[in-house]
Amino acid sequence: MSDPVEEVIVPAYEARTIEVKKGQTLEVVDLEGQQVGDLAAWMIDDPSEHLSPAHTVSSLAKLVPEVGDPILSNHRTPLLRIVRDDVGRHDLIVPCCDPERYAIDYDAPGHPSCLGSIQKAIAGQDRELTIEGENCWNVFMNNTVEDGRIVTREPPHPAGSAIVMEVLEDLVVALSACPQDISAVNAYNPTPMALRVTG
Amino acid sequence: MSDPVEEVIVPAYEARTIEVKKGQTLEVVDLEGQQVGDLAAWMIDDPSEHLSPAHTVSSLAKLVPEVGDPILSNHRTPLLRIVRDDVGRHDLIVPCCDPERYAIDYDAPGHPSCLGSIQKAIAGQDRELTIEGENCWNVFMNNTVEDGRIVTREPPHPAGSAIVMEVLEDLVVALSACPQDISAVNAYNPTPMALRVTG
Repeated sequence: MSDPVEEVIVPAYEARTIEVKKGQTLEVVDLEGQQVGDLAAWMIDDPSEHLSPAHTVSSLAKLVPEVGDPILSNHRTPLLRIVRDDVGRHDLIVPCCDPERYAIDYDAPGHPSCLGSIQKAIAGQDRELTIEGENCWNVFMNNTVEDGRIVTREPPHPAGSAIVMEVLEDLVVALSACPQDISAVNAYNPTPMALRVTG
Repeated sequence: MSDPVEEVIVPAYEARTIEVKKGQTLEVVDLEGQQVGDLAAWMIDDPSEHLSPAHTVSSLAKLVPEVGDPILSNHRTPLLRIVRDDVGRHDLIVPCCDPERYAIDYDAPGHPSCLGSIQKAIAGQDRELTIEGENCWNVFMNNTVEDGRIVTREPPHPAGSAIVMEVLEDLVVALSACPQDISAVNAYNPTPMALRVTG
């Protein structure tokens, strides 16, 4: 693989954006292990078209996309295609964490959230980007469905684990290094991630 | 139960809206059986807060809400609470059907869709309502998750089956009688539904 042409470090508890072009390769890397990233993406030509976990689940008819599968937009356009996945565990059915999740479900008002981090990261963009929690893909999140219940366990993947995707459209991509430190999501220890673009 | 104060018939292949007030009871009725309805709802005071299947699944930590469970908004506000459910089968993880679903996945461009029906139903409202497919709850849809795959079967429920909900906020509600006639969703035969409000 060629050297990265661009790398953005996403500090623990924060989010960052990067622009990618059709034909490039996007890599989401967990630098220290056991960390979940929340990924959002928008079409540069029309940011009202954006990554949609629900549409991806619907058209694939499966909960977790695999190598070879596309990640779709809200108009079912393939935006990314998985070419390598060291982890193989992802959640596409629950929204990213948000202020109300912490305030109501964890009695932790004011806790940092992926939604807040992504809102902050896109606020400085020239482009008109908006984010809803249900449009974030919870990369590497170790959720399973067991007898209809959603069970969240600590992710077992080690430092350096990555998912590598072919970029199929010109996109703005945002990644939040999930700040959840009071449940198993990130093994109680949020750590940094990286976005790498090659090609 | 008291007599309905208002009933709206939702013709097959179409959608209708109704306004409900906190404290009333909302009933979604399948008049002829084996029919799925796609339900959307917005807070009257602030339509940017709306029913969110993904947030509901997240906070309940289960795929299918049961009697006693709330249906939440994108800010995790309880909007409705299930008080009776004749069917007990619902899908909250795939979006409602949309033009691209038919064009791409079923080679049926121009086919009617729940998204199109709801867009048409809300276009005539004074209120500023917008709809995204991932914000529709697929009421009575007989989807199951089996080994990570989403399997859709014909719904077995008979004519007259209903789900009854306590209304917890003042809402605009839209229901689409799903027009899917080329898969098992509505047993290949879309039929009308009803919205009934009491109290």
